[in-house]
Amino acid sequence: MTAVIPSGRRIVLRIEYDGAAFGGWQKQSSEIPTVQGVLEPAISRVADAPVKLVCAGRTDAGVHATCQIAHFDRIAERSPRAWKAGVNSFLPKTVKIQEVCTATSQFSARFSATGRRYAYLLHPSGNDSPQLAGRALRVDKALDLDAMRAAARCLEGEKDFRSFQAAGCQSLSSLRDVRHLRIYRQRGFIVIDIRANAFLQHMVRIIAGSLLEVGRSRREPDWMAQVLAARDRKQAGATAPAAGLYLTGVAYPASCGVPSRTVAPPLLDRLPEFG
Amino acid sequence: MTAVIPSGRRIVLRIEYDGAAFGGWQKQSSEIPTVQGVLEPAISRVADAPVKLVCAGRTDAGVHATCQIAHFDRIAERSPRAWKAGVNSFLPKTVKIQEVCTATSQFSARFSATGRRYAYLLHPSGNDSPQLAGRALRVDKALDLDAMRAAARCLEGEKDFRSFQAAGCQSLSSLRDVRHLRIYRQRGFIVIDIRANAFLQHMVRIIAGSLLEVGRSRREPDWMAQVLAARDRKQAGATAPAAGLYLTGVAYPASCGVPSRTVAPPLLDRLPEFG
Repeated sequence: MTAVIPSGRRIVLRIEYDGAAFGGWQKQSSEIPTVQGVLEPAISRVADAPVKLVCAGRTDAGVHATCQIAHFDRIAERSPRAWKAGVNSFLPKTVKIQEVCTATSQFSARFSATGRRYAYLLHPSGNDSPQLAGRALRVDKALDLDAMRAAARCLEGEKDFRSFQAAGCQSLSSLRDVRHLRIYRQRGFIVIDIRANAFLQHMVRIIAGSLLEVGRSRREPDWMAQVLAARDRKQAGATAPAAGLYLTGVAYPASCGVPSRTVAPPLLDRLPEFG
Repeated sequence: MTAVIPSGRRIVLRIEYDGAAFGGWQKQSSEIPTVQGVLEPAISRVADAPVKLVCAGRTDAGVHATCQIAHFDRIAERSPRAWKAGVNSFLPKTVKIQEVCTATSQFSARFSATGRRYAYLLHPSGNDSPQLAGRALRVDKALDLDAMRAAARCLEGEKDFRSFQAAGCQSLSSLRDVRHLRIYRQRGFIVIDIRANAFLQHMVRIIAGSLLEVGRSRREPDWMAQVLAARDRKQAGATAPAAGLYLTGVAYPASCGVPSRTVAPPLLDRLPEFG
């Protein structure tokens, strides 16, 4: 028997976390702490009841989020401010709730989301930087951005991304709609900024790894279209490391009443708006 | 008997580290890793002999460095490039050598230094940011910067900083020459940027803690001059947390042949030049 949750009892959270501290979003049976595994008990303490979180993007181990959205159904009555302060007091410094709002039971952080945005940060430098360890991938200074941009073009639009899907990914369809895939410099970093309706497992990291093949002149830009057409993971580049990847935004239709948000990592300035 | 080290056998390093990973610079008998405790064995492996490092600024536990300078005397002959690559291959991601040069045996990373520069980063925000945990101190948005600047003015110049000296500090004199102490906004942070010939133990953190008393309007700006005149640690504010503090520069006379360097933390842009 499923409890009927009246309207307004769904609590929506914007969560920020340092991915380096976690074995990914999803709760696991292993010893490694996960974001969900740390958040649910903290919320349950404030809720005085067990809660289950549903999130917009189940990030991998090491992946950061400045804008993860998740929801749960409350039993206890609390103000948004009380939820935030109460839950945060039970959380480690590596994960904090930044915003709280309410929604109807028709809303789902996962299924209502019409867009997710990720930023992959590359740090072109001759040196490894301890201040950036786990926060950006160091790359050679000589990366050919124009070639990467040319290669990226064929990945925009609704395409079958099977070549950019982790072997273990359980999605029924590998069709995804990439709204933008832009590569630009900001604050000494190279940013791979990608937005799609949704992503396959490791999709951003395999795209980043494949773009790096082109940027390092190991492949021509038009190789990317061949990879896409092949619908074969083995044709694409290596999966780029999780460190460097940030979930930066989630979009919902205005009718949900849950605001769409984009939040830049602190190493960057504001993320640009793309049509 | 002390070995005589011929000229050019002194190797000078610029080192960057993530202070969160270490119990400070100085080697300790405890289990906590220290920067010196990790660097010396790594250098010794490349040097094929035990080495002892002397540094410009013995940072506390949790304090970061973008520009720590240290020297040692080599027995083995290696190019600067070989020292850097070799030693870095034995170091964790949290500490890396960024530059290597040679100097005469008259040079000391510590005693030749005529200036050290530190940046204390404050993050004015309503929210704790997991991305900034251990990297900047969160403060109230309503901090009064003009009052802090007015209070800071009396700390510039050659003064007796006994009020801003840790109880355990073993310096013979508490006279220090503060060349600049500036407070400015950059990239959403408030930066306390301070340069002196040298610093007493906890001096920057006690100054930051005292400036925060004024910024939070708990004290008037002219209280700072009273604290300075009292020559009594108990009169000053609390020691601000180590997280948020960066050693950003060390200066040497041109005659040393070792370049003076200033390196901004990745969260900031270039640090300004002050007269």
